[in-house]
Amino acid sequence: MPKVARRFDAKLDSPGLEPDLSSPKGARAAGRSGALDGPTSGLAPGFVQGNLAVLPADLAGDFLHFCQRNPKPCPLIGVSEAGDPRLHLLGEDLDIRTDIPRYRVWKNGALVDEPQDILKWWRSDLVAFILGCSHSFEEALIEDGLSVRHIDRSTTVPMYRTNIACVRAGAFQGPMVVSMRPFRPADAIRAVQITTRFPAVHGAPVHIGLPQLIGIEDIAKPDYGEAVPIADDELPVFWACGVTPQAVIQAVRPPFAITHAPGRMIVTDIRNSRLAAL
Amino acid sequence: MPKVARRFDAKLDSPGLEPDLSSPKGARAAGRSGALDGPTSGLAPGFVQGNLAVLPADLAGDFLHFCQRNPKPCPLIGVSEAGDPRLHLLGEDLDIRTDIPRYRVWKNGALVDEPQDILKWWRSDLVAFILGCSHSFEEALIEDGLSVRHIDRSTTVPMYRTNIACVRAGAFQGPMVVSMRPFRPADAIRAVQITTRFPAVHGAPVHIGLPQLIGIEDIAKPDYGEAVPIADDELPVFWACGVTPQAVIQAVRPPFAITHAPGRMIVTDIRNSRLAAL
Repeated sequence: MPKVARRFDAKLDSPGLEPDLSSPKGARAAGRSGALDGPTSGLAPGFVQGNLAVLPADLAGDFLHFCQRNPKPCPLIGVSEAGDPRLHLLGEDLDIRTDIPRYRVWKNGALVDEPQDILKWWRSDLVAFILGCSHSFEEALIEDGLSVRHIDRSTTVPMYRTNIACVRAGAFQGPMVVSMRPFRPADAIRAVQITTRFPAVHGAPVHIGLPQLIGIEDIAKPDYGEAVPIADDELPVFWACGVTPQAVIQAVRPPFAITHAPGRMIVTDIRNSRLAAL
Repeated sequence: MPKVARRFDAKLDSPGLEPDLSSPKGARAAGRSGALDGPTSGLAPGFVQGNLAVLPADLAGDFLHFCQRNPKPCPLIGVSEAGDPRLHLLGEDLDIRTDIPRYRVWKNGALVDEPQDILKWWRSDLVAFILGCSHSFEEALIEDGLSVRHIDRSTTVPMYRTNIACVRAGAFQGPMVVSMRPFRPADAIRAVQITTRFPAVHGAPVHIGLPQLIGIEDIAKPDYGEAVPIADDELPVFWACGVTPQAVIQAVRPPFAITHAPGRMIVTDIRNSRLAAL
């Protein structure tokens, strides 16, 4: 009954108290205990959150190469040892099997489960990849005084599969997924500057202003997340998105894979500011 | 006959040879001798060129304040002592009265002369302001592999008076003038990154994609320079422009002022790379 044991552990960490969701350790404990099932946006402000991709070891080398070749959608911030669910460099107590609020389990490219933990799915040959996430740069945008539309509306950022092909590596290929935030032109330029400082969390936008050029037929119909309105004096600005591995998994159909559920990230002990390139 | 003397000086610098237009000293000598009457774009590659504004000393303090408040259109790289036409910090031999190929002389906001030198107009109370120029960042764009449309077409960059008001300082106020270069979206993002490194030569764009929002009615009819075509897959990108002081002079109508003629810059000994902020 490992899940129950973990719940008990979480309570032991702060007896009689709810987990402190403003700390990375508390946010992980809330995911671990099952107390948290929603998006992690806004939890543990100031700390890096990560996208998850888990693959069998025989595919891990190719996927690592894929990330190296596609650093904007797949900026690696951590890779586990095969079979080891711990990523001490990202959090002393971090257990990738339990600390995310909700997961997606894939077989041959098809979604087969959306559990709150992956204890029953974990195997000794699995490798976990943690990829930087836009929450880090959104914090920097907001601290600079910009408004981020989906955060103002408390919705999940709109995401789109594009016609931008990722660079193939071994078995891995597929379309880049992008997230979109609308800004007035001067703010869009400022957003380019700010996010350029954060290459480890997708960095600068990949596109601006002309969605049809990257294969987005209808900006009001995102492939993931929820649509947001774009005013007449705004441009849609597109960043490479950590949901790309899910589109790649759907395209490549590996026998087995696990990802986070969109919006449910792993919260790490790394400070966002430590990812700033300058 | 100082102009003749200067011509003789220039010849003495390199007896029997044409001035070397690939060096700042040679480019200045060519302007000084009258051998050069055209735009300075492409001369002395790697070195900073500057816009010129000359004003009487009683207006110089206000104009200095205006530049401080409007660093994107008016990035100061040099200011002379009153009455002293030399700017040793920008070039040992530099004489602001002669070294620009063509000038514009203004009285009460009206253009009254476009001479090849301003020796006859120079006064002991005049102060020369040198402002950074887009030639420096265009060089950085091209070195990064981007195509700059007006350079490919060998025309003067299109410039537009906008509805963006400069911040007033004393008597000085007026509209910001912008220059426009079209780019495909990903190249526009790269251009934001590159020009951000060069705040002393206008820095990052001030606008992108929606010209009507900044008061540009017809992108095909620039107020200065020549129009360039914009393809369907391109966005117009707008930078603050060193022609802004000319629009300000036309708006404010100081009793006396001198500027360079558009496209005819002062070539300095400062390397473009030395203006990079990072």
